[in-house]
Amino acid sequence: MKVLHTADWHIGKKLHGYDLLSDQAYILDQILKIAKTEAVDAIIIAGDLYDRSVPSEDSVRLLNQTIAKWNLTEGFPLLAISGNHDSATRLATGAPWFNQANFHLHTRLQEAFTPIVMGNVQFYLLPYFEPVDARIYFEDSELRTIQAAMPKVIEEMKASFDPAMSQILVSHFFVAGSSKTDSETKIEVGGLDGINGRLLTDFDYVALGHLHGKDALKLENARYSGSPLKYSLSEKDQTKGVWIVDTETSAFTFHELTPLHEIQELQASFEELLDPVYYGKVEREDYLSILLADRAVIPNLMNQLRQVYPRIIQVQRLNGYETAVENRLKAKSLKAYSPILLTEEFFTEVSQTELSPQQKQWVEEGLQVLIKGGIN
Amino acid sequence: MKVLHTADWHIGKKLHGYDLLSDQAYILDQILKIAKTEAVDAIIIAGDLYDRSVPSEDSVRLLNQTIAKWNLTEGFPLLAISGNHDSATRLATGAPWFNQANFHLHTRLQEAFTPIVMGNVQFYLLPYFEPVDARIYFEDSELRTIQAAMPKVIEEMKASFDPAMSQILVSHFFVAGSSKTDSETKIEVGGLDGINGRLLTDFDYVALGHLHGKDALKLENARYSGSPLKYSLSEKDQTKGVWIVDTETSAFTFHELTPLHEIQELQASFEELLDPVYYGKVEREDYLSILLADRAVIPNLMNQLRQVYPRIIQVQRLNGYETAVENRLKAKSLKAYSPILLTEEFFTEVSQTELSPQQKQWVEEGLQVLIKGGIN
Repeated sequence: MKVLHTADWHIGKKLHGYDLLSDQAYILDQILKIAKTEAVDAIIIAGDLYDRSVPSEDSVRLLNQTIAKWNLTEGFPLLAISGNHDSATRLATGAPWFNQANFHLHTRLQEAFTPIVMGNVQFYLLPYFEPVDARIYFEDSELRTIQAAMPKVIEEMKASFDPAMSQILVSHFFVAGSSKTDSETKIEVGGLDGINGRLLTDFDYVALGHLHGKDALKLENARYSGSPLKYSLSEKDQTKGVWIVDTETSAFTFHELTPLHEIQELQASFEELLDPVYYGKVEREDYLSILLADRAVIPNLMNQLRQVYPRIIQVQRLNGYETAVENRLKAKSLKAYSPILLTEEFFTEVSQTELSPQQKQWVEEGLQVLIKGGIN
Repeated sequence: MKVLHTADWHIGKKLHGYDLLSDQAYILDQILKIAKTEAVDAIIIAGDLYDRSVPSEDSVRLLNQTIAKWNLTEGFPLLAISGNHDSATRLATGAPWFNQANFHLHTRLQEAFTPIVMGNVQFYLLPYFEPVDARIYFEDSELRTIQAAMPKVIEEMKASFDPAMSQILVSHFFVAGSSKTDSETKIEVGGLDGINGRLLTDFDYVALGHLHGKDALKLENARYSGSPLKYSLSEKDQTKGVWIVDTETSAFTFHELTPLHEIQELQASFEELLDPVYYGKVEREDYLSILLADRAVIPNLMNQLRQVYPRIIQVQRLNGYETAVENRLKAKSLKAYSPILLTEEFFTEVSQTELSPQQKQWVEEGLQVLIKGGIN
């Protein structure tokens, strides 16, 4: 049996204010193409389908259209769970009808213990849950953490293992030992909700969601698919894609995805950046983090850059700022400066040009008015 | 064929701040019981399933559980449309899978023209739409109103009429001639989006939603079911229920619903209201509008009443307030009053007691301080 494993779509997520819906629609289409080319028997979506518990209408439309196309039009069985970013209640809308079409969406802990059987594989779909859900389900008030609950969860799953079949777990957690990037929620940093990878050894494959890098975990039988897109600058060097898992051969193959717009870092001077020879060679439409070589203050910097580069997510100074005043006033006392001289210095610092004779005359006249008005 | 017609559930609606979810769950169960007792062949829900475009999680849970129970557990075919209170996009979640279970939910104008055939009935499910939807669908930029669009909508439906069958239209609009109550949205007041009842004559039955009173329209072949609960004080004298429509005999029978808590008006004095003999005879748990016979100011009125009556939606004075000052000052000039006398009158009006000698002394001392401070 051949299964495609993806997760962490975060539909509706914005990247530094930029709406990613068209990037997400594009990448989801690409995942579908891989599923068709590879002729997989099912598609796993391991949580965080949405980025927010109350997604926008446009996000709802994209997810609804995507899963209807994959499941009803293309006929792929879907195995999905809710993640910590999803509202389990909202995501569950329609779920009781999905099963008939081989679309299995689990959003509550109690649903995790009845395996979905396809071919010779038992799929256990364990949605993201809170310790309180485990306390209620197991009627055990001592279960204060996910770590404490997981052995019980796995134990209960194993009770229904069929030795003649393979077992695949679909789950959305931080497995201890994983490395993290910036775009996951901060709550779990420090491994507070991390679970021990050894607990997972009885499954033939564990399809994980939650961490955004495919290499976040190195276990023989468990993988994070990672997010299909780079959702933070810290993910810029990650390879994004999906896993194709062959349950007969136990082979996992990673299939790369090519985004509509990459995240890229540019390192150049302001003059270079606005030079057609330079920008003719870069992907101007990418999401760009710019490392500016200049030290001078550049007025109206962002507007000028955005005319050439429409998706700038940040601009940083490679060598810090050159502060004109700081340099010129070195070892001088500011108090010794006349108001006219201070104004000239300030103008020069901000505009990078000297006052013209006419401008200087206006400054002098303006200051005279102020002095007459009581300032001295 | 026997069809149950309901509408305007407004799940998540609050009545003067009171959460109605348990009242709504109760009344929806009662509708299901009627459907079972009457052994209907289908249930029509004519729009405004939710009260808000972004319903709360609890509202989502109630609707999801209700329709799953009715359709999947009890096996009733459902015919539903979105109303003006629903977000068509959000409500449509899962809809492509519902059809397999004979649950037809239409949320877009273009879905209205393919009839759902059950037995010998063609059902046309016309969701609430905006004029812009009609302009796009009919490619006619002149369609600025619902009235202008409706003849085209009906004409297109009639093209698929099968003379061997009955036709039922499910729709959510203000049909001209209807009377209105307070709990519908104000936007349509004045009949701005009203459509002419004559347009509907070609249907055997028109199952309407939007207006909350079952008697809002008197057409031979069209009915508002009204809301299943009283959603405003102005609906207190309405009879709430559902229609059972028999397409063979063209008989419409109204089946009344009994709410968990009625809306009731009490007319009594404060003393009576707090008298066990009085409140032992009234339904204290009802949503109450109280007409207070007293004219006197009663301190801490609401808190005292709420200890006996937990669901007060308003308190009004039957005979207005007795204003002590007004009575006492009759034919006197306020200006002739000393500050001390004015303060005494005010205190008496608000507290319904006289100033004690000690209090009077404090007032005098306080006023002395003010007068010394510059007030005279």
